[in-house]
Amino acid sequence: MYPVITISREFGSGGHSIGEAVAKQLNIPFYDGEIVNRVAIESGYAKELIETQGEYTSSTAMWFDISAAGTMYFQSPQDEIFIAQKKVILECAKKGPCVIVGRCADYILRKEGIRCMNVMIHADMEHRKKRVLERYENIENVSIEKRLAKKDKQRKTYYKYYTDKNWGDFREYDVILDSGSLGEAMCVKTICQLAENFPE
Amino acid sequence: MYPVITISREFGSGGHSIGEAVAKQLNIPFYDGEIVNRVAIESGYAKELIETQGEYTSSTAMWFDISAAGTMYFQSPQDEIFIAQKKVILECAKKGPCVIVGRCADYILRKEGIRCMNVMIHADMEHRKKRVLERYENIENVSIEKRLAKKDKQRKTYYKYYTDKNWGDFREYDVILDSGSLGEAMCVKTICQLAENFPE
Repeated sequence: MYPVITISREFGSGGHSIGEAVAKQLNIPFYDGEIVNRVAIESGYAKELIETQGEYTSSTAMWFDISAAGTMYFQSPQDEIFIAQKKVILECAKKGPCVIVGRCADYILRKEGIRCMNVMIHADMEHRKKRVLERYENIENVSIEKRLAKKDKQRKTYYKYYTDKNWGDFREYDVILDSGSLGEAMCVKTICQLAENFPE
Repeated sequence: MYPVITISREFGSGGHSIGEAVAKQLNIPFYDGEIVNRVAIESGYAKELIETQGEYTSSTAMWFDISAAGTMYFQSPQDEIFIAQKKVILECAKKGPCVIVGRCADYILRKEGIRCMNVMIHADMEHRKKRVLERYENIENVSIEKRLAKKDKQRKTYYKYYTDKNWGDFREYDVILDSGSLGEAMCVKTICQLAENFPE
């Protein structure tokens, strides 16, 4: 049986499309951040928050909360959203093999001891710029590099905040591929083959 | 045509054996540190130094030298060895596709614009300990972790010193594989397949 496949990726590296193609080829469900959020809303988890807040960590919005045990602690809206997403990710993974893109799924599943294959996709700036330009017509060429760097920073911060690990540290992944040099098709083929042969 | 394949690896991850198996399967030459040194000695490059000095950087042994242009500069024996190894690596790579393990070959070839596929192999401490114990009978179990950590540190320092880049940074590699979770055979298969399909 295939493992659950998690995909972390640099923005513009094609990791999302690669994940979709892998799911299609292996005929297993695909979940990205949008789908995870939709399921979380449908389940009633942090519904209003997810509808109004973004994906990333904020250091400003914090509030008091009282846990079931009566301990007072701080929790930000983003923490609430993370907890809701985590619940959905675990529910999806427990149903069987699937592909999950982003949302610290690699960390969440490993910590719960769920059999998973953690993949990371990256590419050099030139490939990422080219890819983003092809897909988002209204983006200005001059600002792309800044936007890519900002997205990378957001993902790193988000990952560090919720996992206390460094995003992109090779120790966290079973396979890391450069979609720029290898091409997206070979990334898809490689991931599928490794999933098909992943030890039980 | 296959690219030149460079393999960086954590000590005990099986990267050396994987490299040998890839070279055998693709029927191309294999070079590791020992072979690079032997060729350097045969070529007369830094012969005495290579025969007496180790692989790693030293901050103590430095001497004055005068370049052909008459400029005086400092150069350590390790720098001399590195330059000799670099010459050999470039000569080997220019002959055609091959596998080169270690010695910053990834950095050296990329900098010279030589078509190469840079691979990194790692594994978790348990797998590495197990592998080292199986291969080196006289090693004490208790000291293995320390020795592995020391080897990692030496390689990182060596890489940083000669490339000014961080060893293990995903941006430097086309593919990074966890030989512990994926198994050595799948690593060999994956590398061969990626090399066979590496863009011209």
